[in-house]
Amino acid sequence: MNRQAILHIPDSQYCYALACDRVELRLRTSSEDVFSEVDVVYGNKYDYHLKRERAVMQKRFSDGTFDYYFVRLSLKDVRFVYVFELHEREKIYYVSEDGVSESYDFKLAYYNSFQLPYINRTDVMPEVEWMKSAVFYEIFIDRFFRGDTQKEDAYINLKWGDLPHPKSFAGGDLAGIRQKLGYLKGLGVTALYLTPVFCSVSNHKYDIYDYYEIDPQFGTKEELRGLVKEAHALGIRIVMDAVFNHCSERFPYFQDVLRNGKASPYFDWFIIRGDKVDAEKCNYECFAACTYMPKLNLSNEQAKAYFIDVALYWIREYGIDGWRLDVSDEISHDFWHDFRKAVKAYDRDIVIIGENWHDARPYLCGDEYDGIMNYAVTKALLDFFAKKTLDAKQLAERMSALYVRNTRQVNNMMLNLLDSHDTHRFYTETGKDTDALLCALAVIFLHTGAACLYYGTEIALEGGYDPDCRRTMDWEAAEKGTKIQELVRRLASLRRKEAVRSGEIAFSGEDGIFILERRGESVLRLYVDRSGGHRCVPQGEVLLAYGWEGGVFTGTGFMIEEVAYE
Amino acid sequence: MNRQAILHIPDSQYCYALACDRVELRLRTSSEDVFSEVDVVYGNKYDYHLKRERAVMQKRFSDGTFDYYFVRLSLKDVRFVYVFELHEREKIYYVSEDGVSESYDFKLAYYNSFQLPYINRTDVMPEVEWMKSAVFYEIFIDRFFRGDTQKEDAYINLKWGDLPHPKSFAGGDLAGIRQKLGYLKGLGVTALYLTPVFCSVSNHKYDIYDYYEIDPQFGTKEELRGLVKEAHALGIRIVMDAVFNHCSERFPYFQDVLRNGKASPYFDWFIIRGDKVDAEKCNYECFAACTYMPKLNLSNEQAKAYFIDVALYWIREYGIDGWRLDVSDEISHDFWHDFRKAVKAYDRDIVIIGENWHDARPYLCGDEYDGIMNYAVTKALLDFFAKKTLDAKQLAERMSALYVRNTRQVNNMMLNLLDSHDTHRFYTETGKDTDALLCALAVIFLHTGAACLYYGTEIALEGGYDPDCRRTMDWEAAEKGTKIQELVRRLASLRRKEAVRSGEIAFSGEDGIFILERRGESVLRLYVDRSGGHRCVPQGEVLLAYGWEGGVFTGTGFMIEEVAYE
Repeated sequence: MNRQAILHIPDSQYCYALACDRVELRLRTSSEDVFSEVDVVYGNKYDYHLKRERAVMQKRFSDGTFDYYFVRLSLKDVRFVYVFELHEREKIYYVSEDGVSESYDFKLAYYNSFQLPYINRTDVMPEVEWMKSAVFYEIFIDRFFRGDTQKEDAYINLKWGDLPHPKSFAGGDLAGIRQKLGYLKGLGVTALYLTPVFCSVSNHKYDIYDYYEIDPQFGTKEELRGLVKEAHALGIRIVMDAVFNHCSERFPYFQDVLRNGKASPYFDWFIIRGDKVDAEKCNYECFAACTYMPKLNLSNEQAKAYFIDVALYWIREYGIDGWRLDVSDEISHDFWHDFRKAVKAYDRDIVIIGENWHDARPYLCGDEYDGIMNYAVTKALLDFFAKKTLDAKQLAERMSALYVRNTRQVNNMMLNLLDSHDTHRFYTETGKDTDALLCALAVIFLHTGAACLYYGTEIALEGGYDPDCRRTMDWEAAEKGTKIQELVRRLASLRRKEAVRSGEIAFSGEDGIFILERRGESVLRLYVDRSGGHRCVPQGEVLLAYGWEGGVFTGTGFMIEEVAYE
Repeated sequence: MNRQAILHIPDSQYCYALACDRVELRLRTSSEDVFSEVDVVYGNKYDYHLKRERAVMQKRFSDGTFDYYFVRLSLKDVRFVYVFELHEREKIYYVSEDGVSESYDFKLAYYNSFQLPYINRTDVMPEVEWMKSAVFYEIFIDRFFRGDTQKEDAYINLKWGDLPHPKSFAGGDLAGIRQKLGYLKGLGVTALYLTPVFCSVSNHKYDIYDYYEIDPQFGTKEELRGLVKEAHALGIRIVMDAVFNHCSERFPYFQDVLRNGKASPYFDWFIIRGDKVDAEKCNYECFAACTYMPKLNLSNEQAKAYFIDVALYWIREYGIDGWRLDVSDEISHDFWHDFRKAVKAYDRDIVIIGENWHDARPYLCGDEYDGIMNYAVTKALLDFFAKKTLDAKQLAERMSALYVRNTRQVNNMMLNLLDSHDTHRFYTETGKDTDALLCALAVIFLHTGAACLYYGTEIALEGGYDPDCRRTMDWEAAEKGTKIQELVRRLASLRRKEAVRSGEIAFSGEDGIFILERRGESVLRLYVDRSGGHRCVPQGEVLLAYGWEGGVFTGTGFMIEEVAYE
């Protein structure tokens, strides 16, 4: 046995509460080791030396390097202690806080058993139920649709359909989104993620100077209110973009600091070296190297309170359903902790989605965000479909590795996406391969958590990096109808299935076919072939297929079947 | 290379900020693998694809299974990204979020490098400076010394010197402690840890019915005020015991619930199944199986506020210097988070010490406690000196494994102890081996964090498990003077050395000798021989020795030398 491969950490994604009396345990082992049985030996902290129970763990994931054994337990006592027992041929190994050993003295377990000493209600992370079947649609507002034909439009400098430049304005607005709600509903969309709507001089509006007002280019507060109302009536939720890492240099409090230096009451809202801002030397912290976006110091209690109030204001007054947090990983844990408390105290179904491109476990322990934009899955799918650096088995392994990074609850609240306003478009990355795009969509639609389409994906809108990925929506193509729209509609309807909402997930790759399985009251299986030609015979009812006929993939394609639970 | 042994986790004890522009990184590898060089390749998130720096890591710890490489970096930019590069003969391996690979594409690092995306001031854990040289002395008040000869003493049922029963009262009090401050000062003590002082009917007072009053058996508020004042004048700090997991059944709010069931405003301060307390069925949560100690529901916001106010009251009004948190691991993270915020906002030098017997990393991330009672070190020293299940090298490995569990800051705020009111006495566990006791004391006095003596250790007080470990202090022996007192005094003075306050620590075990090294402006080395007979020639000035003569250990003993930094 490779002892060094063994990993278990209590009070982490390896051991966490699903409810006050239910825990999930995971144990990592080397994928090169074979065990006849892996058990958890558990009990109550206060009589563990006398009385113990045993449960067999199941191998549920393998990432090619490690295997992951899982078990879920219902507890009679929430003062939970445990060690693992691994059976390898004749040998038995124990795993405790002190590592791997060949014997274990249960009488001294109070020193070194694993434990979850007491499951307190407030420490159990709840799920935002609606995320589990959500179909998001991200809208870059300026480029989606212009609905208000009466507005002051001298700012518009891009003809709809032309390629955007960094400073282009095309005229999209909230009224435009509202007019397209029916279209979105028809596509199966259940939630919108809107890029920022607040006052800002840029087209993207990630540099905000007034957090309490809608930018006039996009509309009015009344229009936002109407949009939310009408969207809700159609069963569509609205998630907005919270840009709290930095603001615009035009933000009045930064202006006050520019004028008054250290004498300004807002001096400490920013991070400035010296007594006043020296614009030429840029002696203040800013976003990336953008001096027009000074970083906010949310360690300052007044600044913290201000931005938490912003978040609550739009929830309370306009009824929005969540916040996507821009550059959230550069903001302190302390801020997100207090932000979450305030938001969830108002309504625990408000979703909080971080923009962390990397493993975000420290932010996903239940006291900061609910989930993140799942760019790690984006990369895995690009590696498989575009760069082709992963084969089917390796994709399954990568997806497994990403799944075990987080708890069940967090996985159910991830925002899975193929692209966004910050990336090349997936379609473009694959060299305009519609088949690959459809297969990748099938993966994110059947994955745990929400699926998110970037506007225009359904019409195979092209786009390289910013600003090219922010082209104007082609409404002619959209209204004519596309194969992608049809598939999205059908995939979206599958998200309502119980197995997709709450079934267990598993990944495998065999004979060139990538398989994603959801095991609930029935079993849903997605089979994906990247190159075509592989054989794949259904074992149940075929729900949806593309590029697959009578047991064989005719090209890059997928097949989804449903099998009654054995 | 054993790829599965590699472990690194950003934003954990493997990567954390020491200051806003300083980080410490650790990388775990298999102790069976040899690398010619281990580097971290790091840079700024926004131009890492273009510009990178490199630093060589040093192998600083080995626990027999794993080696741990360390490096400390000063950063020009706090948006810190990095991967590791391991050189093994001709081969180079990279370690990133995606695991071990033989090549690494820095252009795509934004997807899978490690990162600490931005070091925000509030997320940097500060140290309580005074803990680093502290010598604690734990007092079980009823058994230490009776100072007030005038008080109502009908409750006393144990003759001083007789063996205690579970319900014994011997008469020790705050006045007694105050009278012995000179003695404690003489011993080198710089902080007292007092078991609970609040109103309670038991001798231990861990079942409290009034958190705002001193138990009359122990004295008055004025006596506490005087004790704190006089102790402070002598440079001795006072840490009290916060029993917030549970209370006494006599706690008025529990009594209110007993009377009024669900109609009581305090019903939700407890965890009760059903509409009223059924004492016979014990339908409420309690500490262990002690029905007279109902568990408090600190998820209730009123209850939470009440107990945070208790903590602040005694700090504010009586000037105490810290809280030791009873059964802290059974209380929610949410409570400790808010508790810390309130306490540290008042004074960040107030120390918070959890009672967690197990790996407490989730509570030691900087937003809950400062340190814990380091029972894992207790066990390691028992295994070496009493059970003799570890040899010198294995003890070094165990101590290393425990050190790397936590950040530098946390290690500097640990409370290292050999025993307490909750364990057998160390002296008794060793079969009354004074030599072993002295050597073990030398280890905890030179360790990172505070050293803590349990009252009577200095006179080799005996004691099995509770209540035997709570015998009355033998003042005749104490006043006569002991070899242990003399050694404690000399060890205590060594704690003020710069190398012990802030030097790096290292452990090794060679030729039967356990070595603990502190490397600051000078190098202090402690050599311990358990069995005697081993040769140990000093390389510098011998500061203190016991059972060692002219280069050889004459029995179980230790030698501490100081070497000028090479």
